[in-house]
Amino acid sequence: SGGAGTRLWPVSRKSLPKPFMPLPAGGTLLGGTLARALRVSGSDAPLVTVTAATYAHLTLDLYRRVAPEADARQQLLLEPSSRNTAPAILLAALWIAARRGGHSTLLVLPADHLIRNEDVFASDVAKAQALAAEGHLVTFGIPPTRAETGYGYIERGDALEGGFKVARFVEKPDASTAAAYVAGGRHLWNAGMFCFRADALIEAADLACPEVMGPVRACFLASDARQPRRDDARALTWDAASFDAIPGISIDYAVMERADRVAVVPASFDWNDIGSWTAVGEEMPSDADGNRIRGDAIAIDSHGCQLHSTARTIAAVGVCDLTVVETADAVLIAHRDRAQDVKKVVDALRARGNASVDTHLTVHRPWGSYTVLEDGADCKVKRLTVKPGQVLSLQLHHRRSEHWTVVTGTARVRVGDEEFDLERNHSTYIPVETLHRLENRTDTDIHLIEVQCGDYFGEDDIERLEDRYGRV
Amino acid sequence: SGGAGTRLWPVSRKSLPKPFMPLPAGGTLLGGTLARALRVSGSDAPLVTVTAATYAHLTLDLYRRVAPEADARQQLLLEPSSRNTAPAILLAALWIAARRGGHSTLLVLPADHLIRNEDVFASDVAKAQALAAEGHLVTFGIPPTRAETGYGYIERGDALEGGFKVARFVEKPDASTAAAYVAGGRHLWNAGMFCFRADALIEAADLACPEVMGPVRACFLASDARQPRRDDARALTWDAASFDAIPGISIDYAVMERADRVAVVPASFDWNDIGSWTAVGEEMPSDADGNRIRGDAIAIDSHGCQLHSTARTIAAVGVCDLTVVETADAVLIAHRDRAQDVKKVVDALRARGNASVDTHLTVHRPWGSYTVLEDGADCKVKRLTVKPGQVLSLQLHHRRSEHWTVVTGTARVRVGDEEFDLERNHSTYIPVETLHRLENRTDTDIHLIEVQCGDYFGEDDIERLEDRYGRV
Repeated sequence: SGGAGTRLWPVSRKSLPKPFMPLPAGGTLLGGTLARALRVSGSDAPLVTVTAATYAHLTLDLYRRVAPEADARQQLLLEPSSRNTAPAILLAALWIAARRGGHSTLLVLPADHLIRNEDVFASDVAKAQALAAEGHLVTFGIPPTRAETGYGYIERGDALEGGFKVARFVEKPDASTAAAYVAGGRHLWNAGMFCFRADALIEAADLACPEVMGPVRACFLASDARQPRRDDARALTWDAASFDAIPGISIDYAVMERADRVAVVPASFDWNDIGSWTAVGEEMPSDADGNRIRGDAIAIDSHGCQLHSTARTIAAVGVCDLTVVETADAVLIAHRDRAQDVKKVVDALRARGNASVDTHLTVHRPWGSYTVLEDGADCKVKRLTVKPGQVLSLQLHHRRSEHWTVVTGTARVRVGDEEFDLERNHSTYIPVETLHRLENRTDTDIHLIEVQCGDYFGEDDIERLEDRYGRV
Repeated sequence: SGGAGTRLWPVSRKSLPKPFMPLPAGGTLLGGTLARALRVSGSDAPLVTVTAATYAHLTLDLYRRVAPEADARQQLLLEPSSRNTAPAILLAALWIAARRGGHSTLLVLPADHLIRNEDVFASDVAKAQALAAEGHLVTFGIPPTRAETGYGYIERGDALEGGFKVARFVEKPDASTAAAYVAGGRHLWNAGMFCFRADALIEAADLACPEVMGPVRACFLASDARQPRRDDARALTWDAASFDAIPGISIDYAVMERADRVAVVPASFDWNDIGSWTAVGEEMPSDADGNRIRGDAIAIDSHGCQLHSTARTIAAVGVCDLTVVETADAVLIAHRDRAQDVKKVVDALRARGNASVDTHLTVHRPWGSYTVLEDGADCKVKRLTVKPGQVLSLQLHHRRSEHWTVVTGTARVRVGDEEFDLERNHSTYIPVETLHRLENRTDTDIHLIEVQCGDYFGEDDIERLEDRYGRV
């Protein structure tokens, strides 16, 4: 589960990237991927998510919401830094082999693809499993529907039962090459989905890329004995120093392109990688004028427009072929044919230091979330949501005091040496330099409005003395 | 000062219409109109503003801000309802005649025009004053620069000293007629600016439209003895019942088009009625790509776009000839050539009950303003600004309690029977059904954050017991 999704700005951002983005039809790409994994896996098979350590809580929260029955099977393997796909997948293979035996089959599913036909998907996976059982490293190839230059291609070779040998992998082609691939019928898009036995992958990697496997094994050994995260026994973060020493390389380049027994199963299922707002639009119903509208938006004398409102009214007048995406702090207006260039906006805004490229006004934390309602010179106002059983760090601020008013639920509050329950419609005051802690001991969310007074309201003015989430 | 300016949505709204809209170069149309009036009027001449009663405080606030030295000369004549221009101007003429004598000259300036060259304006006004002194009803005609179909035209007749007799007024023409007017050189745009002696207008109106002048005189008599508004001696509201009985008709139609001695002074000054976003754009500098940008906006591979941001980041990618206007609760995206159709949006949104057609998230009140920061199911959060010397009504709420935290200044607060000063970084609590009052006894603005808790947060849950502004 990686995928920054910068082409999906302003909704997809570093702090809440593409896999967590709400989809037009409801749900999220990560939730859909979990559902697919549940569909094709044995009832006791571990559901392993490899992702960045910063997304651990978001991921577990989402899983508990969409598949609470599978909670005991979830295992997070967390990357302390970003090192491409090979380190993450190879470490997962070592972990599976150690936990369940080398003959265990791994199905690797990127968390940012949309697949609707789960029955067909399951039958394609069954074909891949059979090939993997024979020792093949299996990829899934998507039959191309256009001369796409944004994907790598797989050229199929001799037929196998349920698939083909891979003749070769090819890099992202130019337009004419891509057109020739589509016309030729022997090339498939490489969607980054794989199926293999753990031992087959490890053996192939030892041969194909010992320069990667050496540091991967070192990292595995350095990490194996480590305690899981205090707040969740099913989240293991790889040892940072030895993880950082692994070359950042893709599993395709490190292993698949260099290995011998590589097979491809052409996908019979539908597939959309939601790579741009155009792809999102394909998932939205169109009205008589070809407009696709989500949220509070109105189109007058307009055609072929995609209007996404999350908070505010959008009104379009006399415009064609536009994609408009509105969020609490940023609005995108792009021509439909320029959806790929949205990343240019992100680059330009990042150069300007614009916060909207990384964070939303709503920020998720291990204990819940906060939304900035006002960020003024004289105060900052936030709505805080604390999840059941969660607790913020014991902390103090040097340059601001805080006024808390509980608007939903009952909070457990410590201010200085006093600890007490703060009910709905009650408020308390935390002076500058005063130790305080906020806790939810109930079984429902609590909401507070926090008014900060002071001369500096940065998130770095937090001195943490105790923290359940390891942030001291 | 009327002018709803629906073509300038989402910035111009009923609660803060076009004359108060911030202009790209700074200032407002109403402020500019006051400056023009100051430039050409005698130092003791009354500055009379005819406007709707609901805009009285906004108007006086603006005048105090931009021309405090002229405060003693300001007089508001307030309309209790909207009845077009004839009732307002004829009542003003009666008021001037009674106060300063019938030979007083009135210069009537709409508050929603932009004129930059004040010297030339003053010299044109001098010509009009000379003609008015002779008993002419003088209009100003704008030499047409395009075949505009949105204005009425004035055909000039024989020459007079400083101007021309008016041959006739013509209604808004079709495109070919407008083109013929521009080519012919005898037609001028009717800009709704007038100059006449009070007695000349009254006499002409008595002859031309007795059916209007009868009810106007009745309203004047019914209103004359009335007390001015308690909070400001220089604001007179016309008697509502008799004002409502006056036919709603324009001064052009009621008097100018039917009177004998009507003259026109062709305008030598520049003139922009800021009738649409296109006209606003003409006041903004253009970059190398023809983009006009205001606020936090970025244009990538885009041309001929006007981007107005008031609060959030706007990013445009690969688009041309668009007008984008962003406000706290609504975003407009219009093709540049469709600027006139923005009113269609307002009509459509009004039919949907969308609040953004009438009010902004920031609402102006006689005592200051408030901005809604959060409007949730469990609470409503506002930032309140109370101006120096102002006081909110003594009030109570039946369905909400309030938590106030002062973030700038010192407030005078009454809660129940207690009254006390609340300093910055202090808070207080107002229970349901408890009388309270908020006051600014200092000489600087105070700011508070108000957190409302309850089950209903409508503005109609206010029971006022005393109110300086007559709202009990």
